Amino acid sequence: MIDLLEIKDPSFIKKMTIKELKELAAQIRSFLIESLSKTGGHLSSNLGVVEITIAMYYVFDPEKDKFLFDVGHQSYVHKILTGRAKEFHSLRKYGGLSGYINKDESKYDVWESGHSSTTISAMAGMLLANSNKEDKVVSLIGDSSIMNGVAFEGLNFLGSQRNLTPIIILNDNKMSISKSVGALSKALSRLRGTKLWRGLKRFLIFIFPTFVCNFFHQLKRGIKGLIQQDNIFEDMGFDYYGPIKGNDLRSCIKTLERVKKNTGPVLIHILTQKGKGYAPSEYDKEGDFHGVEPFDIQTGKPLKEHKLNEHSYSEVVANYLLHKRDQAPFFVVNPAMKVGAKMQKFAELYPHDFYDVGIAEEHAADMAAGMALSGKRVVLLYYSTFSQRAYDQILNDIARQNLPVIIGIDRAGVVGEDGPTHQGIYDIAMFQSMPNMTIAMPKDTQDLIGIFNYAFIHNGPMVIRYPRKIIDIYFNTLDYTPIIYPGYETLKKGNDTCVISYGPDVLKILEIVNKYNLDVSVINARFIRPLDKEFLKQAFTSYHTIVVIEQVIRNGSLYQMIVDFANVLSANIQIKTISFDANMILPHGRIDEVLDNYGMSEQDILNIIKGQN
Amino acid sequence: MIDLLEIKDPSFIKKMTIKELKELAAQIRSFLIESLSKTGGHLSSNLGVVEITIAMYYVFDPEKDKFLFDVGHQSYVHKILTGRAKEFHSLRKYGGLSGYINKDESKYDVWESGHSSTTISAMAGMLLANSNKEDKVVSLIGDSSIMNGVAFEGLNFLGSQRNLTPIIILNDNKMSISKSVGALSKALSRLRGTKLWRGLKRFLIFIFPTFVCNFFHQLKRGIKGLIQQDNIFEDMGFDYYGPIKGNDLRSCIKTLERVKKNTGPVLIHILTQKGKGYAPSEYDKEGDFHGVEPFDIQTGKPLKEHKLNEHSYSEVVANYLLHKRDQAPFFVVNPAMKVGAKMQKFAELYPHDFYDVGIAEEHAADMAAGMALSGKRVVLLYYSTFSQRAYDQILNDIARQNLPVIIGIDRAGVVGEDGPTHQGIYDIAMFQSMPNMTIAMPKDTQDLIGIFNYAFIHNGPMVIRYPRKIIDIYFNTLDYTPIIYPGYETLKKGNDTCVISYGPDVLKILEIVNKYNLDVSVINARFIRPLDKEFLKQAFTSYHTIVVIEQVIRNGSLYQMIVDFANVLSANIQIKTISFDANMILPHGRIDEVLDNYGMSEQDILNIIKGQN
Repeated sequence: MIDLLEIKDPSFIKKMTIKELKELAAQIRSFLIESLSKTGGHLSSNLGVVEITIAMYYVFDPEKDKFLFDVGHQSYVHKILTGRAKEFHSLRKYGGLSGYINKDESKYDVWESGHSSTTISAMAGMLLANSNKEDKVVSLIGDSSIMNGVAFEGLNFLGSQRNLTPIIILNDNKMSISKSVGALSKALSRLRGTKLWRGLKRFLIFIFPTFVCNFFHQLKRGIKGLIQQDNIFEDMGFDYYGPIKGNDLRSCIKTLERVKKNTGPVLIHILTQKGKGYAPSEYDKEGDFHGVEPFDIQTGKPLKEHKLNEHSYSEVVANYLLHKRDQAPFFVVNPAMKVGAKMQKFAELYPHDFYDVGIAEEHAADMAAGMALSGKRVVLLYYSTFSQRAYDQILNDIARQNLPVIIGIDRAGVVGEDGPTHQGIYDIAMFQSMPNMTIAMPKDTQDLIGIFNYAFIHNGPMVIRYPRKIIDIYFNTLDYTPIIYPGYETLKKGNDTCVISYGPDVLKILEIVNKYNLDVSVINARFIRPLDKEFLKQAFTSYHTIVVIEQVIRNGSLYQMIVDFANVLSANIQIKTISFDANMILPHGRIDEVLDNYGMSEQDILNIIKGQN
Repeated sequence: MIDLLEIKDPSFIKKMTIKELKELAAQIRSFLIESLSKTGGHLSSNLGVVEITIAMYYVFDPEKDKFLFDVGHQSYVHKILTGRAKEFHSLRKYGGLSGYINKDESKYDVWESGHSSTTISAMAGMLLANSNKEDKVVSLIGDSSIMNGVAFEGLNFLGSQRNLTPIIILNDNKMSISKSVGALSKALSRLRGTKLWRGLKRFLIFIFPTFVCNFFHQLKRGIKGLIQQDNIFEDMGFDYYGPIKGNDLRSCIKTLERVKKNTGPVLIHILTQKGKGYAPSEYDKEGDFHGVEPFDIQTGKPLKEHKLNEHSYSEVVANYLLHKRDQAPFFVVNPAMKVGAKMQKFAELYPHDFYDVGIAEEHAADMAAGMALSGKRVVLLYYSTFSQRAYDQILNDIARQNLPVIIGIDRAGVVGEDGPTHQGIYDIAMFQSMPNMTIAMPKDTQDLIGIFNYAFIHNGPMVIRYPRKIIDIYFNTLDYTPIIYPGYETLKKGNDTCVISYGPDVLKILEIVNKYNLDVSVINARFIRPLDKEFLKQAFTSYHTIVVIEQVIRNGSLYQMIVDFANVLSANIQIKTISFDANMILPHGRIDEVLDNYGMSEQDILNIIKGQN
């Protein structure tokens, strides 16, 4: 038994026996369950990859070889083995251990994979740049991640480079964030089936030396088809090994030892059980244990009881869309967000109108465009950060063609525990650069519904963004703010200073203004684009100062558009702002902690309004 | 013989005999050669698809069915058949016929495919939205286009929708813009080989009724592997037909008639000869006849002689990189630009440092990031418009990680004949939104080399953009402007007004200023980001007016950044600008015509400088 908290580097692993490694695996599992029950985090995916991660460290040399994790949240075991168990109490907390790969944390973290499917291209670059061609690059990639376009482009490239030796470990746990979608997913199912050939190959790997296996491999290529189907990975130029029992340490090690000597691109298909070793997560079919809150180990239930009247914006949007769908037909398209966007019920009731296309952001946008061109209404849902993947398609195929697609942008603004790669602070700059685009953000659920209703009759593309924030009010689809004009709303009328913001931040600002009894106007810029020029023209002459407060990067922000407009009018007005410098990288942590530490605390807001900064 | 110029709609095609259709094909070929010899345009790809396009119109019903072309420049035959032959004299000219699909031109143009690989996702949307499920959607897609990530995402989706009937015609002409790259390309080569099975299937399609073929198809699925390899498209859920002789009208018609009755997703693999029917383009191995200038039909030579000392910026960059590579090693990564970026010689001399990865913009960015993380210098080349495809990867994987990748952005600014989908007017807004990004643009080749030299020692990501413009000076790698500071250059010192611009536009402005003897300063903002704050601070106090002139959209422009900075300093200065409103869609035409008609003529520039607007 070693003390996980005492691990300095992963060199101890190589000295262990298989028996000891198995004990290590059990120990890591207990540690993960224990630790995550207190901090929360990505539980089930990490429980699934305990053995394969240990095997990677046992077989390869982490001082020379590189390990990539796709996506990075399945790297907890890697973090433990590289000496970070002692920091797990701070997991995903401000200033604490990142929930993803982070180069600042460890020299063993080589590729920061917050967005999925990038490791295959990255490993191609690393392999080409390796001066020692013997050094291995290994990617552990999930079955959802591998179905994205960039992963395909990477596979297509690497499969044709017979002189490179990428080792791709496809972690197939048959239960992705939302269920894997598409033909490749079906192909994987077929591969999962027990085949004479697969069994034979697994057997051969165990008993025969490499050259016999290689010969057999050649022979197999020759008589291919007699006992097995060729598969898509072999079609793409990879030597395919699988399916391998990914939770069997011995199988993992034997397979990795075999492919280590391979002279071309290899893909190992391992089958793992998500949540392995913890009953509540093993039996979880809904994805509840994908990302967990602190929970009770005995029951698996969250420690914090959810209040009955506490809802996320995603939930409100989902409910609204259900309600709206009762009245008129429309399509909902989204990439891998069925669960995250709380759309299970919609999917169940309207299976022919709901398309979760898996992690395929580009496809989602173009499919939505195709539907809109055929005269149908479409709601296209993204998380802010992943909409970046479809920039070109939204710009060229939706916005340029002025198609009436409603783009719901969830998790807009500072995103919290997921950190730098997931911040929703770029989307406004992105959508500002597109033709014909209307951008709106509700301050509350009444606004949200009003804005959605407006979007359904608006004749052009429209972004509606909403934050991850939990809201504490009862949701009623009939209780909403009718919106017929894309303009601002005055929440409080005051003198001298006019504070403009959007989203729930407006309410926070209103609270501060009321609390300190400030004589200023508070404006809800429900529509970020177009500018409410009528309002602004008046404001430029009525106020001494305008303050714009935004949880986005400054470049391309509403503030810059307002300053541009003031400049055009040669307005004699002072305009100040709080937003994030475009060079700023916001860390992980609770949203309020990040805001407090990056210039957007209550005090910061108070100061700028009072003119003390 | 029908008169192509008299075609009103494509209904006449259905009434023709096969013999007449063949005559029609010959007639269209002559017309294309004749017409394009005068106007220029995409010749060889269109000569290759004459038969298949005619067959599409013969077999399907264009009044109900939809035809998509991927990319849109292989749609000339479609344009002729839908009544636009009479407008070919104006092809790609300002106000004339578009070189791509354009919904405003014809009701038969249903999907504006300027950027590649979008049609499969679009057709998925159209099929799902079709109220009559009998209506067909057909995509004619090139062998380069199908290898992009978004195409893969589309195939992955459609292959799993057995109740939809997409018809994808893979136009394999074995010679893409640059040579197709990757494993899939190799897979296509294998499929091209004559196989007993393929011949058998082709034969069967001709002689047997559908139900026999379907039975045989089932049988084949059962005994799959005995006489043929399974292939990647079948793995993905498509019924695969091919390879078919794509320049044989009868084969095309027979195959389309067969698949018309198919009840699931179909992919037809046709082999065509690019440039078919015109000897100089048939024998063209370099891609010279991909996009042609007006040429002499007898010889195939361009009518306009290229001057010896006339170079494109692409050429200068290619020469510079060759020269630089002599001194120190670095990688060049680019998506399908080997020929377009004039990098053939570099590729030949340094095959292990040059990677044209095909139309895989996302992969290119992440591969470059992987190389840079391994301590290597990388030059990543894009056309401005296609860099949009890699927005997320450049933002997250290059810029956020502050990797020293040099991003060459070719065809920046107004792009000319390719039109709306290809304008290089969004990249500045895009790169402004990314952390750590430096953005530069040279006014001439001396600047260009100075800036590139700077970039090679700069420790972070850097964009160098350059226009499509032809330059008329002798290029000498030793003759360059040394640049050690990312600041502005004063080209002319004057009073009252300070004109700031970047790129070759600066020289045009200087010319105007000199011509009209204007007492103004002319500033070369070689570095668009970061701002030259020292210069600007001074300028805000020294001048009455600053004029910023840019060939990009206004949102996210240098002008907006300068206005923001002036606002921060509460500078009392008038700032004016010429740029493009973000809602503006710029049409095709000569660059100068587009500029003249969209607010950037010599007169417009003169007016704004003189304060007359």
